[in-house]
Amino acid sequence: MKVIIVGGVAGGASCAARLRRLDEKVEILMVERGPYVSYANCGLPYHVAGSIENESSLLVATEEMFRALFTVDCRTNCEVVGIDSKQKTVELKNHLTGQTTTEKYDKLLLSPGSAPIRPPLKGIDLPGIFSVRTVPDARNIRAWLDRDIDRSVGESFTGDDRVSKSKRAVVVGGGFIGLEMVEGLVERGLEVTLIEKLNQVMPPLDIEMARLVERYLVKHGVKVELSNGVAGFRKTKDGSLEVLTDSGKVHPADIVILAIGVRPEIELAKMAGIEIGKLGGIRVDEHMLTSNPDIFAVGDAVEVRNFVTGKWALIPLAGPANRQGRIVADVIAGRDSRFRGTQGTSICKLFDAAIASTGASEKQLVELGDKDYEKIYLFPNSHAGYYPGAKLLVIKTLYRKSNGLLLGAQVLGEDGVPKRIDSFAMAIQMGCTVYDIEESELCYAPPFGSGKDPVNFAGMISANMLRGDMPVCHWDYAEKGFLLDVRNPPELDVESVPGAVNIPLPQLRSRLGELPADKEILVFCRSAQRSYYATRILLQNGFKVRNISGGMLSRSMLSSGEVK
Amino acid sequence: MKVIIVGGVAGGASCAARLRRLDEKVEILMVERGPYVSYANCGLPYHVAGSIENESSLLVATEEMFRALFTVDCRTNCEVVGIDSKQKTVELKNHLTGQTTTEKYDKLLLSPGSAPIRPPLKGIDLPGIFSVRTVPDARNIRAWLDRDIDRSVGESFTGDDRVSKSKRAVVVGGGFIGLEMVEGLVERGLEVTLIEKLNQVMPPLDIEMARLVERYLVKHGVKVELSNGVAGFRKTKDGSLEVLTDSGKVHPADIVILAIGVRPEIELAKMAGIEIGKLGGIRVDEHMLTSNPDIFAVGDAVEVRNFVTGKWALIPLAGPANRQGRIVADVIAGRDSRFRGTQGTSICKLFDAAIASTGASEKQLVELGDKDYEKIYLFPNSHAGYYPGAKLLVIKTLYRKSNGLLLGAQVLGEDGVPKRIDSFAMAIQMGCTVYDIEESELCYAPPFGSGKDPVNFAGMISANMLRGDMPVCHWDYAEKGFLLDVRNPPELDVESVPGAVNIPLPQLRSRLGELPADKEILVFCRSAQRSYYATRILLQNGFKVRNISGGMLSRSMLSSGEVK
Repeated sequence: MKVIIVGGVAGGASCAARLRRLDEKVEILMVERGPYVSYANCGLPYHVAGSIENESSLLVATEEMFRALFTVDCRTNCEVVGIDSKQKTVELKNHLTGQTTTEKYDKLLLSPGSAPIRPPLKGIDLPGIFSVRTVPDARNIRAWLDRDIDRSVGESFTGDDRVSKSKRAVVVGGGFIGLEMVEGLVERGLEVTLIEKLNQVMPPLDIEMARLVERYLVKHGVKVELSNGVAGFRKTKDGSLEVLTDSGKVHPADIVILAIGVRPEIELAKMAGIEIGKLGGIRVDEHMLTSNPDIFAVGDAVEVRNFVTGKWALIPLAGPANRQGRIVADVIAGRDSRFRGTQGTSICKLFDAAIASTGASEKQLVELGDKDYEKIYLFPNSHAGYYPGAKLLVIKTLYRKSNGLLLGAQVLGEDGVPKRIDSFAMAIQMGCTVYDIEESELCYAPPFGSGKDPVNFAGMISANMLRGDMPVCHWDYAEKGFLLDVRNPPELDVESVPGAVNIPLPQLRSRLGELPADKEILVFCRSAQRSYYATRILLQNGFKVRNISGGMLSRSMLSSGEVK
Repeated sequence: MKVIIVGGVAGGASCAARLRRLDEKVEILMVERGPYVSYANCGLPYHVAGSIENESSLLVATEEMFRALFTVDCRTNCEVVGIDSKQKTVELKNHLTGQTTTEKYDKLLLSPGSAPIRPPLKGIDLPGIFSVRTVPDARNIRAWLDRDIDRSVGESFTGDDRVSKSKRAVVVGGGFIGLEMVEGLVERGLEVTLIEKLNQVMPPLDIEMARLVERYLVKHGVKVELSNGVAGFRKTKDGSLEVLTDSGKVHPADIVILAIGVRPEIELAKMAGIEIGKLGGIRVDEHMLTSNPDIFAVGDAVEVRNFVTGKWALIPLAGPANRQGRIVADVIAGRDSRFRGTQGTSICKLFDAAIASTGASEKQLVELGDKDYEKIYLFPNSHAGYYPGAKLLVIKTLYRKSNGLLLGAQVLGEDGVPKRIDSFAMAIQMGCTVYDIEESELCYAPPFGSGKDPVNFAGMISANMLRGDMPVCHWDYAEKGFLLDVRNPPELDVESVPGAVNIPLPQLRSRLGELPADKEILVFCRSAQRSYYATRILLQNGFKVRNISGGMLSRSMLSSGEVK
């Protein structure tokens, strides 16, 4: 039995190592087009930023390790240039020698990854425009940033008093890599402009959550330009770059980072004649088997099923790639391992904050035409408010109205985000309802949480809604009713809502006569806790009432489409 | 309907607030013996330490808030001194006026909490010996620490050049409160000795995990004395204290903190004639109803069912108390809410580290006579090793051998502990198997985790064992076989295992002839990863072999009972 693995990073390397563990005898050939196998591509933005100083730190395993420890015939700088799926052969080209050879396989694994999207824009190949995909990419970006610029003659590599370093960066694309690069370039002291074609950054988030991320970027000195595509690039007389945009605006830059997204590498799959999905990724079954019974595929190149939405998805993340690689090894070794699909768990560090999500977003549900869901916003402390360092978390959760099933969660904040998103992720994996997370026993001590954890709160709020104890609405519904603000007057001095009547909560019971019996009362406070109390008082006194989810805190999130 | 709630802190206050939300009309009387309701007793050690500077920060809600917001007749400094469960009355004593009154109830909730254990030792009432239970306790400790001591005349409160502050503290008891107080006193600059009667600190942990905590204390300058009880206290001529111990050793101290544990307050329950469990707590059903159909009980005073072990337990923690209070409110309001029991999730901050556990410990399983379990140790990085700040986590997990059910987890470390313990806690709540956590999709970016999270690793290792891919043993089994060390020679220079044969992993396949065919080979490396690879090679070559869980890292944990 001979197995050829195409691509030696996350999925391919995981498969090779596990397959050897399962079977000492199988012949394994792993080829990698680039110079390195099993490198930490997730670390590249941090290497550019300088927080990971040594390139060698990124090289998790080497070609030699695969040979010595796993007796894998591991070849770097070696590309598959042809596949004959009838003869079951691949044609390999050694990029160092230029030689091509043909190798026969019994089973073939395609783990080619994805390629950064590089639209055919004018000037896109100008020096100083980079993608961030490989170790050499990072090396080139660092060299470019470290070079000296003599503004009178264009760039040069000579040290000189008249020269300066790169000062202005444009990052194109506001997804994970884009934001990580923005952070890294800001930390290196550059002025950074982020250009994003969509009307929000961080596509896994719903737009109102992304608004907070955009404001956070602005707070850190980043210029954020949404809903604007890049039209082209040109070189100026002083040797720097200009980024032309669809809006006509031109952004000067000493360096440009393209982080527009990635596209599955499917050239080999096409050569092999295997099925491609509608999203442009290789179609596989739960054994990671393609439409050809001897060809498997894993990682960024494949489409996987999102088990929350039921839809196919492209998930270019390391975790699923590693698990898929293991599954292919199992299946080749004769085992019935199955990939359970993805739930889209992700996290991104941005300055002091973390941006995380898991499960379905509201926009995904809307796109599916799914109306059997409800959402809530909450703004709990990351840990007991009386212990130093507590930060506000921003949490949005989605659940199924008909049965309480937890569908998705988005969490932003400067403290305690991983703890919450992983609790939600595990909950969604196991089919938790909001009644389950209401009762979860999560860790609590004042430095780490609260007696009622934010995850419990999300459950309690949702369960209160489902049990009919707390009808809820959102700010987009606010025009339809009588707005009641139950905050204390000093809070209104900071920010008030036009048209809202103020009755501070402690006075509510004695002032019920001031409220309309025939209109729906929409009640709010700062965070929706006091307004929940008010909702209960009013409901029991026969009023029609809804609590506005998230109160003033969600209003400030939603109030403006502009990035201020 | 009139409900009387006895005790106004976690469970009582939660019940009062929710009951009012559910029912505007019910008459609620909440009495609290102490001067404050709803205060943050979990924050007291941090207030003593000074990290929470203002006492007022600890007062989460006030008597006035309960009156104004919840129309609860809230009375502090008011103690229940008698219960007539036939007449359904309680006798109340106002400690400020000395007056007693009798109040009738329809439903009674006992939420009296627990009392610090104060054994009747000689000298236990000497000034300078404190428990940490109430706001006044913390205030008294701070005043005592801040006082000036004139060694020539005993303590005095006059400032003087000849005087000094407290320097030496003895903390009796190594549980949560004891460790939090140790940390706080060290941070205040005191020399701290911790005396613990048991042979380990932190009872929720298994002993080998506690060993690491003990060494961590020593590393921070704490003297740790295990397996030694306190025999008494005496005052010296210079006005300081001496702590006498069972071993005969005498410890000088300027202050003594008693944190021996707590005992459920059941005097009222006894007055009411309701059933007490074998552990000394009030016995309740899943509605938190006692043996009297009109009396509920919650919080530290009750016994709850641990749903992992099936045993009754005393869990003096805020989270369960709050949830129980809510459930009683629901039940009184006519709803079918049930307490699901506890799984013993807990966490404790200690200097830069966190100590956490959830589910069953090994010693609990041993005590139950349960032999259908297996344990593993692992020592993964808290996040990608190549990203700065990664710390080693120490994880022990337990699972059911017959079906893979996750039973318990203990996690120690200086980074990323809450993320992991909450994932494990949610997994245990939902009845996850190790096969489930093997496939969990938890959040990953280099600053927060790894492509394969430590939680996944725990699942993978356990699943490898259950599938028969990796027979495992522990160091206590090591004498029974042929010890094979697959580390590289430089690692052996640091620490080696007597009697072990060294064959570095890369040479193993070519040196199989050196291994005995008739003996079980017990293979190890630093962390049990390379030895897992070796195990696979040897198994497939017909050897009998086991991987030693946790390798040298678990050996160093287990090797010595002494605290060095």
